[in-house]
Amino acid sequence: MEQILEEKVVMRTAIDNLFNPRSVAVIGASRHPGKVGYAVLYNLVYGGYGGKIFPINPNADEILGLQCYPSALKVPEEIDLAVITVPNRLVPEVMEQLGQKGVPTAIIISAGFKETGGEGVKLEREVVKIAKKHGIRFLGPNCFGVIDTWNSLNTTFSAQSPLKGHIAFISQSGALCISILNQGIMEKIGFSKFINLGNKADIDETDLIEYLGNDPKTKVITLYLEDIRDGRKFVKVAREVVKKKPILVIKSGRTEEGGRAVSSHTGSLAGMDIAYETAFKQTGVMRAYRIDELFDAAEAFARVPLPKSENIAIITNGGGVGVLLADAASLNGLKFARFTQKTIEELHKYLPPFASFRNPLDVTGNANEEVYFNAFKTIIEDPNVDGVITASLPVQIIDERKLAHLIGEVATRVKKPVIGCFMGGEEVEEIEDILRRYNIPNYTEPERAVTAFAKLVKYKKILEELNVEEKIVTFEVNKKGVAEIFKKLREENRTRLTEIEAKQVLENYGIMVPKYKVVKSLDEAVEAAEEIGYPVVLKIVSPDIIHKTDIGAVKINITDEKELRNGYLGIIMNVRKYAPRATIYGISVQEMVPSGIEVIIGGIRDPQFGPLVMFGLGGIYVEVFRDVAFRVTPVSEREAEKMISEVKGYNIIRGVRGRPGGDINFIKETIMRVSQLLEDFEEISELDINPLMIYEKGGFAVDARMTIKY
Amino acid sequence: MEQILEEKVVMRTAIDNLFNPRSVAVIGASRHPGKVGYAVLYNLVYGGYGGKIFPINPNADEILGLQCYPSALKVPEEIDLAVITVPNRLVPEVMEQLGQKGVPTAIIISAGFKETGGEGVKLEREVVKIAKKHGIRFLGPNCFGVIDTWNSLNTTFSAQSPLKGHIAFISQSGALCISILNQGIMEKIGFSKFINLGNKADIDETDLIEYLGNDPKTKVITLYLEDIRDGRKFVKVAREVVKKKPILVIKSGRTEEGGRAVSSHTGSLAGMDIAYETAFKQTGVMRAYRIDELFDAAEAFARVPLPKSENIAIITNGGGVGVLLADAASLNGLKFARFTQKTIEELHKYLPPFASFRNPLDVTGNANEEVYFNAFKTIIEDPNVDGVITASLPVQIIDERKLAHLIGEVATRVKKPVIGCFMGGEEVEEIEDILRRYNIPNYTEPERAVTAFAKLVKYKKILEELNVEEKIVTFEVNKKGVAEIFKKLREENRTRLTEIEAKQVLENYGIMVPKYKVVKSLDEAVEAAEEIGYPVVLKIVSPDIIHKTDIGAVKINITDEKELRNGYLGIIMNVRKYAPRATIYGISVQEMVPSGIEVIIGGIRDPQFGPLVMFGLGGIYVEVFRDVAFRVTPVSEREAEKMISEVKGYNIIRGVRGRPGGDINFIKETIMRVSQLLEDFEEISELDINPLMIYEKGGFAVDARMTIKY
Repeated sequence: MEQILEEKVVMRTAIDNLFNPRSVAVIGASRHPGKVGYAVLYNLVYGGYGGKIFPINPNADEILGLQCYPSALKVPEEIDLAVITVPNRLVPEVMEQLGQKGVPTAIIISAGFKETGGEGVKLEREVVKIAKKHGIRFLGPNCFGVIDTWNSLNTTFSAQSPLKGHIAFISQSGALCISILNQGIMEKIGFSKFINLGNKADIDETDLIEYLGNDPKTKVITLYLEDIRDGRKFVKVAREVVKKKPILVIKSGRTEEGGRAVSSHTGSLAGMDIAYETAFKQTGVMRAYRIDELFDAAEAFARVPLPKSENIAIITNGGGVGVLLADAASLNGLKFARFTQKTIEELHKYLPPFASFRNPLDVTGNANEEVYFNAFKTIIEDPNVDGVITASLPVQIIDERKLAHLIGEVATRVKKPVIGCFMGGEEVEEIEDILRRYNIPNYTEPERAVTAFAKLVKYKKILEELNVEEKIVTFEVNKKGVAEIFKKLREENRTRLTEIEAKQVLENYGIMVPKYKVVKSLDEAVEAAEEIGYPVVLKIVSPDIIHKTDIGAVKINITDEKELRNGYLGIIMNVRKYAPRATIYGISVQEMVPSGIEVIIGGIRDPQFGPLVMFGLGGIYVEVFRDVAFRVTPVSEREAEKMISEVKGYNIIRGVRGRPGGDINFIKETIMRVSQLLEDFEEISELDINPLMIYEKGGFAVDARMTIKY
Repeated sequence: MEQILEEKVVMRTAIDNLFNPRSVAVIGASRHPGKVGYAVLYNLVYGGYGGKIFPINPNADEILGLQCYPSALKVPEEIDLAVITVPNRLVPEVMEQLGQKGVPTAIIISAGFKETGGEGVKLEREVVKIAKKHGIRFLGPNCFGVIDTWNSLNTTFSAQSPLKGHIAFISQSGALCISILNQGIMEKIGFSKFINLGNKADIDETDLIEYLGNDPKTKVITLYLEDIRDGRKFVKVAREVVKKKPILVIKSGRTEEGGRAVSSHTGSLAGMDIAYETAFKQTGVMRAYRIDELFDAAEAFARVPLPKSENIAIITNGGGVGVLLADAASLNGLKFARFTQKTIEELHKYLPPFASFRNPLDVTGNANEEVYFNAFKTIIEDPNVDGVITASLPVQIIDERKLAHLIGEVATRVKKPVIGCFMGGEEVEEIEDILRRYNIPNYTEPERAVTAFAKLVKYKKILEELNVEEKIVTFEVNKKGVAEIFKKLREENRTRLTEIEAKQVLENYGIMVPKYKVVKSLDEAVEAAEEIGYPVVLKIVSPDIIHKTDIGAVKINITDEKELRNGYLGIIMNVRKYAPRATIYGISVQEMVPSGIEVIIGGIRDPQFGPLVMFGLGGIYVEVFRDVAFRVTPVSEREAEKMISEVKGYNIIRGVRGRPGGDINFIKETIMRVSQLLEDFEEISELDINPLMIYEKGGFAVDARMTIKY
């Protein structure tokens, strides 16, 4: 017996209980319509839920015909899920009781926690502590609850339930949930699950994405997020789930990290949103910027098969709409399939000789539904066409209802994605109902139809990308050497490495730097220069001087001893004058390396997603055009390659018009080594290699900055 | 009598008759429902039109209770407007009769003209000829007609009329008209005039824009265009009309000028769409890319006053929507007004202490309509707030209908623009009706609300811009000198100027070029170099060699006679080897000017809009980032200045971080001189000054290319 129970616990996860509980207790069930505790119970009782329901209220014997219990502890049976609607201050006690009762899962609808600040924050911490102690997983607090249309489970206080369908929606905003639920009903969008995250004190977006990845009723996961609780976990999970089904997200809100000290170039190039943007891109999570865009795409994913390629056809009975669709299609990366000769011959049978017979195909306003349909059928059967956007305007001659049926039947048969852009008029709702029966989503705005179709293609490409194996290279490095440098900084209470220290860190990670020697006297300098070989560069070494050039503490292209002596003394003089209080470690004599292509490789650490590596070309590429690429670590070989090729200055690196290019493999390796360094040392908050000088073969980290936190 | 008639003709323009005719003849009026000639007559008779109606049909005595005439000539009274619905081949005869009758204006609904190619093209030309002969102005052919809601005039065959309102809509697509008419009715958008252009054989968009500029019922002009018939006229007219009311346009379709020979840098940088984009920008015509975007903005213009500034407030009862609105607002250039201390104190009376009291203001889902309204009233009365986006989600506690009334009353009083984002649910239509009563447009998508508001701000700024006087400078130039150069080219049957000829053209227009001399022998070269002064540059002069550098026909930085001799012979050898058949005019010895900031000034000629001037920084600014600015000529001083400041590389020209900048006045003047040159000589099809070398004071056209057409 014990063992069987064990097994059950293993099979049924805490999150299963959110959607498919065998029994639900409503803590704070109320007899008074208008109260949340009543509405939730009502929705459970009358929403079609098939499991057991236990209202908990110490002041009632029976509500809505169900026996009431004074507390969860008094319920004689197992409770899979508790929905808590009591006032905030009572929640800790309730959680304690649920723990004692052994309830595995809860939804805390009650508000008055972190979102109210002060006492609320403390109260939420207390609830988390109790939940942890008892192993209770919970959603919320301050949340709207969940709806599972296929299990007819509605734990919310909403008067309505969404239609059954295959879109899962997770929202960080409760109010938005209500609005989308209502809009969804009006627009007949079908949902599998509807979830409001609330304060995310325990269960978060990533837990749910992971779960929904395995939910057979969910074909596409949509989210509205304001932040992500654990970026590293999100990246790991989302990447796997995207292989199974598309994830679409609206991420709003720029994190207000204005306070973050930005001392590196990389830091200033990384906008507030860059970590999210990078993480989404890298995991194949598709971002939407409008609510309609989100659900337009979701509807397409929920209804049509993925296209084989971006080669589509557009058919329309109105030239204007055709052009609008074509413009939008081009901008969204769709391509116009070239009709085969056979298709064109076939089209000649139906269309007037002055028609264009090209894609986009305009059957003109003179076409009735028969003509339109014959043309449609011809092009969708063309082997070059991998999907169709079918647009129709309500011109007098056409019976759009008949057309919708005709198109629907063929679309179902050929198994290519078909998206509608039936645009007009009073009958459009009726037509949309017909199209929906054949799983053709319809959009009355050309741009929306195209954007939705483009997402299908995008996901198709994401899948292809994700199928390629990502090799994370691990280099042999001297971790200990770096640890010692950081230890020394900590001992000296410093956070900013000198250029020389930063270069030593890089050297320990196998990144080439020009030859250098730190000297403390002019004689040593002369000796070092002889050893390194002219021309050399002189630079002050000081933890206090960041902008060395600005105060004249750098002398380049020193070709002989005389220049060296002058340069050395010049630096000493300038430092005395402009930075009299700076701690000076010496002057470094460095090899003057030949000029090549200047690139930048940098790193920053994001509070949610951890380290990010940046790559860009130097000079105006970053300064004026912010032409850079970011990746969340660890950066695979393939991603490193993509970083290099996605910047606009890529041609410079490849070499164009007879100019020599740069060693791409060297850049790639340096990116990966920096990635490894950032992964190995959490204390690095920012680093810049600027410039990394690139030659046809190899290169050097000519200058470097690095900051640590501890 | 004669004189009075004259006066009448002057006062009533041909286009007046399209919308406000005293009498209308329907040529091809039909007794058969389903026929266009019936539907048009029906709409005139039953649409509420107050003028006289004459059905013309030789085979009927009476239709819809009106006496029929066999031809327009038989109508005993004056006809202001004829609506033609007869088959295409009969149209010339009908037009001839209209001419004889003295009908000033016609709408040709009949199709089968240019749009069908071949014979149709000829037929259209014939119609134009007849119309010209008789001075008839006409709309179409192949058009849907016009609707004037305020005169209850519907000359179309549409079963429905749009609602009365203040938006004029002009469409180049007939089918789109029908669709938008239907959608507009569903979404309760009010129109003043509804016009389909058809083939634009006579009356075009510019004629109508000019007319609508003076139409008191029209507050905003919207257009769907696929092309513009006369770009120069459009620019002139639109610029004036925009001072009176906003113009919004969707311009679809990339002109397929793939065939256009592009030999200049400027040509390749000017995309297919650049002339339109430039013309819209320069005239203050606002471009939309989606149909909903077009009418969202139009609704706002039709209903709310313009804001004083971009400083707005956002108020919401749902944090999520607030963040979405805030994101969109930032992206669209709106700014968040800073609440005064008084406002914050006032808000404290209504909102819980944990509220943020910041803009965007989240009154939270706990606010009922009273609380929300008090907060709304407080912020809209804040003197720092110049407009409000008011968002509401249908949370249980709030009565949104009441809220809509409360907000509406205050909004009407304070005369600041208020835009609604009431997002949800079944009741949203009812709420929108309430808001509309107070002239508050509502959008259920945050992004749409913001985009509409941003257009108000944009127009406000356009008006400010247009109020600044535009000074077109005319320089004293040597036109004759240029004419002679072009004459010589024509005589020699050449279209491409040599570098030297191009520079001579520039010199004639007062644009400085480095000293040069074309020589034919080594001795002459030596002499020229002495005269010019070393260092010099040698370049081949040949109409057949464009890429001089590629074949080694350019030698730079020649510092003495020895180098000169070597260089000279080198060029001769290379030309013999790589371009043995080229015509050689000589070798030019040129002053080697010091390096400065390299910019490009170019010109192309667009078939619709005439000359365009381009400006950009040299090197990767144009090659990689296409960081350039265009203007339609003539370019005023102010526009020239804006061209320079709008490129991303502007900082380089201004001089940054201690680096010297360039002579902005010199660039400005060169742009204007190039503009004048392009205006003066229609035969110039492309020109490039690349580079124009800029110094702190002045500069030189170091290299130049130019092509003419004749």
